[in-house]
Amino acid sequence: MRSDHTENRSDQIHVTLPPWVGEVIAGREIFPTLEDRMRLAIALSRENVVRKTGGPFGAAVFERDSGRLVAVGVNGVTRHNNCTLHGEMVAFMMAQARLGNFSLGAPGMPAHELVTSCEPCAMCLGAILWSGVVRVVCGAARQDASELKFEEGPVFPESYRYLEERGIEILHRVLRGEARAVLELYRAQGGAIYNG
Amino acid sequence: MRSDHTENRSDQIHVTLPPWVGEVIAGREIFPTLEDRMRLAIALSRENVVRKTGGPFGAAVFERDSGRLVAVGVNGVTRHNNCTLHGEMVAFMMAQARLGNFSLGAPGMPAHELVTSCEPCAMCLGAILWSGVVRVVCGAARQDASELKFEEGPVFPESYRYLEERGIEILHRVLRGEARAVLELYRAQGGAIYNG
Repeated sequence: MRSDHTENRSDQIHVTLPPWVGEVIAGREIFPTLEDRMRLAIALSRENVVRKTGGPFGAAVFERDSGRLVAVGVNGVTRHNNCTLHGEMVAFMMAQARLGNFSLGAPGMPAHELVTSCEPCAMCLGAILWSGVVRVVCGAARQDASELKFEEGPVFPESYRYLEERGIEILHRVLRGEARAVLELYRAQGGAIYNG
Repeated sequence: MRSDHTENRSDQIHVTLPPWVGEVIAGREIFPTLEDRMRLAIALSRENVVRKTGGPFGAAVFERDSGRLVAVGVNGVTRHNNCTLHGEMVAFMMAQARLGNFSLGAPGMPAHELVTSCEPCAMCLGAILWSGVVRVVCGAARQDASELKFEEGPVFPESYRYLEERGIEILHRVLRGEARAVLELYRAQGGAIYNG
């Protein structure tokens, strides 16, 4: 099971998006409404299942006010052998690389938001705090994921309060039914429940 | 501030270790005691400050029983413009790439542990759960980091309990004084407190 990186202590990690992502975005640059933005996140999550490139989770970073798409992410845990590559994490990495800053809330930037097809796990919730976004929009609920045996980790009501107290607005259950349907599709396909 | 990736929706993220890492490891493969392992994590954190390659945090993944070093990580947030690249996250990524698996607890593997120069933030604590390690060894305390205005995020006593209930052993404050001294060195050098 060892990769060919075994001998090299100066490993490079490469994180990519699957090649089909451009088809889903279809050249669109502006996503005016919350529902438009969530539909993109859900479409990414669905395509990740259909193309068998990872878990049933998609996310995107937008400029909150203009709706301009900055970057997208899909779950890449199995494809990259990397437990940290949840959809939200990949979206943050790609957005920050594109903007050349480790914070999406740096001085002079427009306000950014994360739109995610499912409420974040403990890791992604922590990353939201470091990412610099000012709003998070969630589709499926934690309960929907846990019914599928996807663990969400130590996320408590006070975890969300902690973010809100620091000025991050959080919207839950936007197009929840459509988002949840992708989780069910994944289960129906017999997709791997890693970290179950 | 935009990078030259702006035009490409299929961005690749590259995550590397700084070139000096090999000097700190110095060819050692086995680290018999907890203190040996923690001294490596602290040396990595210190060198990251001295060489100005990132925040004052280092980590390593070992085989718990043999003490064999699997991979190391140092904070790469500023170097890579990537808010997710805390030392623990980089160590997990590198270890999983090397072993060719998204879990360090996959069937047939020896038990793995994370040794980190400082108690993990909320993001890294979540990642610990997904990483597959069975033990976490911490140097400096959350309080030491927060006195330096490094935010740790929504980590509560029940967050640790959540991990322990799932079979992860957690040891705190191993060589805390030495680990804390690196945080103070960083402050004395005027290092950036990102996400403060």
